[in-house]
Amino acid sequence: MQNKSYKVEIYVTMISEIKKSGGKKMAKKYHVVIIGGGPGGVATALSARNTYPEKEILLIRKEKTALIPCGIPYTLHTLEKVEDDILPDASLEKNKIEVKIDEVIGANGRRLSLKSGEEVEWNKLVLAIGAKPFVPPIPGINENGVYFVKKDINYLKELKERVEKSQRVLIVGGGFIGVEMADELLKKGKEVVIVEILPSLLPLSMDPEFGKMVAEELRERGAEVHIGVSVKKIGKGPSVKEVELENGRTIPTDLVIVATGYRPNLGLAEELGLEINERYGIIVDEYMRTSKKDIFAVGDCVAKRHFLTGKYSKLMLASSAMAQGRLAGSNLSELKVVKGFLGTLGTFSTKIGKSAFASVGLTEREAKSSGIDYVVGTYGTVDRHPGKLPGVSRVFVKLIFARYCHFLLGAQVKGGDSVGELINMFAVMIQRKMTDMEIDTLQIGTHPLLTSSPIVYPVINATVNAIIKWYKK
Amino acid sequence: MQNKSYKVEIYVTMISEIKKSGGKKMAKKYHVVIIGGGPGGVATALSARNTYPEKEILLIRKEKTALIPCGIPYTLHTLEKVEDDILPDASLEKNKIEVKIDEVIGANGRRLSLKSGEEVEWNKLVLAIGAKPFVPPIPGINENGVYFVKKDINYLKELKERVEKSQRVLIVGGGFIGVEMADELLKKGKEVVIVEILPSLLPLSMDPEFGKMVAEELRERGAEVHIGVSVKKIGKGPSVKEVELENGRTIPTDLVIVATGYRPNLGLAEELGLEINERYGIIVDEYMRTSKKDIFAVGDCVAKRHFLTGKYSKLMLASSAMAQGRLAGSNLSELKVVKGFLGTLGTFSTKIGKSAFASVGLTEREAKSSGIDYVVGTYGTVDRHPGKLPGVSRVFVKLIFARYCHFLLGAQVKGGDSVGELINMFAVMIQRKMTDMEIDTLQIGTHPLLTSSPIVYPVINATVNAIIKWYKK
Repeated sequence: MQNKSYKVEIYVTMISEIKKSGGKKMAKKYHVVIIGGGPGGVATALSARNTYPEKEILLIRKEKTALIPCGIPYTLHTLEKVEDDILPDASLEKNKIEVKIDEVIGANGRRLSLKSGEEVEWNKLVLAIGAKPFVPPIPGINENGVYFVKKDINYLKELKERVEKSQRVLIVGGGFIGVEMADELLKKGKEVVIVEILPSLLPLSMDPEFGKMVAEELRERGAEVHIGVSVKKIGKGPSVKEVELENGRTIPTDLVIVATGYRPNLGLAEELGLEINERYGIIVDEYMRTSKKDIFAVGDCVAKRHFLTGKYSKLMLASSAMAQGRLAGSNLSELKVVKGFLGTLGTFSTKIGKSAFASVGLTEREAKSSGIDYVVGTYGTVDRHPGKLPGVSRVFVKLIFARYCHFLLGAQVKGGDSVGELINMFAVMIQRKMTDMEIDTLQIGTHPLLTSSPIVYPVINATVNAIIKWYKK
Repeated sequence: MQNKSYKVEIYVTMISEIKKSGGKKMAKKYHVVIIGGGPGGVATALSARNTYPEKEILLIRKEKTALIPCGIPYTLHTLEKVEDDILPDASLEKNKIEVKIDEVIGANGRRLSLKSGEEVEWNKLVLAIGAKPFVPPIPGINENGVYFVKKDINYLKELKERVEKSQRVLIVGGGFIGVEMADELLKKGKEVVIVEILPSLLPLSMDPEFGKMVAEELRERGAEVHIGVSVKKIGKGPSVKEVELENGRTIPTDLVIVATGYRPNLGLAEELGLEINERYGIIVDEYMRTSKKDIFAVGDCVAKRHFLTGKYSKLMLASSAMAQGRLAGSNLSELKVVKGFLGTLGTFSTKIGKSAFASVGLTEREAKSSGIDYVVGTYGTVDRHPGKLPGVSRVFVKLIFARYCHFLLGAQVKGGDSVGELINMFAVMIQRKMTDMEIDTLQIGTHPLLTSSPIVYPVINATVNAIIKWYKK
């Protein structure tokens, strides 16, 4: 639907442009044109600059300023202003990437028509056109007082103002963005309600026992957490005053924030005639090449398969987008970096209250539903040693190994701030197909003020816990 | 010298034992006997328990309580009491490892004589007999008021008392232990002098630019740092009052702490007739097997070669000792874990003032002196994003890659507390022979409150910095 009106709009604009220019229009030529200014677009631009030190590279984005996507929840409280979450253009400027604040409204061969009336020509085109919030089919969802998590600075400013005026906020969706917003609103002293349709929080990235820990962190600070229940109706206009759940319960609220995931932006891909999967995004090969020569796509707009299961994955992450962007930027002409992106791995981290949570690869639930024969290893300890040192947090690690080939398939962690880097160590292990035995004899560094003791180092001890089970089988 | 008197002592003891028992003595039999209660001994014991769920395992150590070696500097100030640095016996008890507080004073075939008069017999013997402080040949080094960093609780208590009474402390040696002690003494409000013979602090594990940062952290807080100069003389007795440097300078002090490295304990290895290298330790193969059947050795007492250069390495680290211990414990009978220890990697981390420092693999200096053709990549940024978030630290990463085979060879980092885990990610990369191109397209996780932004993630950006140099060569 949306798509048709989009095409009409382009058509009208193009006609008027052609008229204005007397039917012929000069187009500025660029070697590389990238559409989209998020992490995937920026990574592609910087990487393309390394590949082509001398050629002209253009990045077109709609937004005057680009936002750091994962910083958006923190604009509600921790960051004073939404503007503090801006992705600076300094690295683009330094690398002589031309930036146009404009919108592509039409495409013809190697020529793009922009909203400003300008036209540009490309040799290599990269789509990094991102995703838009998914709008669940709930009656009342378009009511005044219902907000989505859009990557739009003015919209977010309005949301922030609205939050200031609200006493009670209900969040639909208990994924990362939902729980991060709940955490921010609690810090702000608001009354917070969170509703998740699946049976635990963070359902896509962590197993239920971790979801439970997150719920406890939120409940302890006064949040109302409803899991395994969907929203039936948002009422009553003109501004929202209550939300009705499927179980019959009615919850009063001053504001609703919907954080139920994203869907790829596909309008321009259709316009260009690219192959797409309506649900997951633009079809690309492992070099980020679309179905049309010299057109690449990266990031949230791209259909991704999971690194381990090979199935389509719903995950949309800046880190995957950037890995794809660096790969595309390196390989625009010849293949410099061979087989770089072998599927999305899903490396997350977040902080709720004083605890950090992180996950990479498969959860136990995913392993089970993918029919994988796995062994679980767990270990809990403290992240400083001896435990009497200041700044100690409890850390808990859960690992999933393939029973027969012994590869590490997934890791989930709760702990202190260092979990943010700990999870990346696991990400390296999975990407390099490390086995339990290799982790068992790994040489790591430890320090009293920075890590767990070598004797209880949880990465190795959780692995040993899995090995013992495997021995006994 | 020491060794001869040791043999005489054993001889006398054995004779008297034999007399006492009428020439025959009952020995309790154990499947595995481990000598030494440090990290290497404990790791071997726990791992051996997994290998032999039912058999008798004995761990013999001299010390009533074992200390956490890397926690020792923190007994000076951060930990209230030296006893707070104890390695708890809980995991040994839980795993039914018998612990004897005793000393091995003689060995005959598969029988060991203990100081208590007891004798024990082993099927598999593991030496984890550690190291002792190196005593540099400086006149006055045995003066009252000169302390070493011994793993001995009563000695350390005495040192702690002595520190309390001193206003001014001079530390000989600017390696990790030296700078950590300096940091602790500064926190305690003492006047601190540190003297390092090599041209920068942390000379074995970090390049001079990092040594300089450490010196700045200490100097800013009032420490006197002397580098590239040796100590000529410690005077004047009966208690130390001043230290004379090779450059003629005389420095007054109330106390001297010598932290100039360790040498392997070898007496018992000689007694057992094992092959040894006098400087580096007991000779073992890659399964930690000594030159005698069924005798293994792990940890500081073992001669280690560097993972990358193959040369003998001076490094003595709990993390290497534990990797060796887990390997030895798994492989006491059949080889369960194949080729597990391929040389010592040297993964360190520490915290000086508010900054953490860490290193793994080769420094640039070592790469150069080993004749390796390398490329350096560096990157500096902040470890939260956006940079306006609270708790931000600057982070600086230096990476060394092999120019032709592209493997990561070394990493050095200065930053906030998460550096403790970041360095372990690099340790995994080196052990799994990851190349620059693989790191370039790595999928990592980032979070505003926990890590750098994906766009400036220093692990990848330092790698890209190296790749660009390599392209241009």
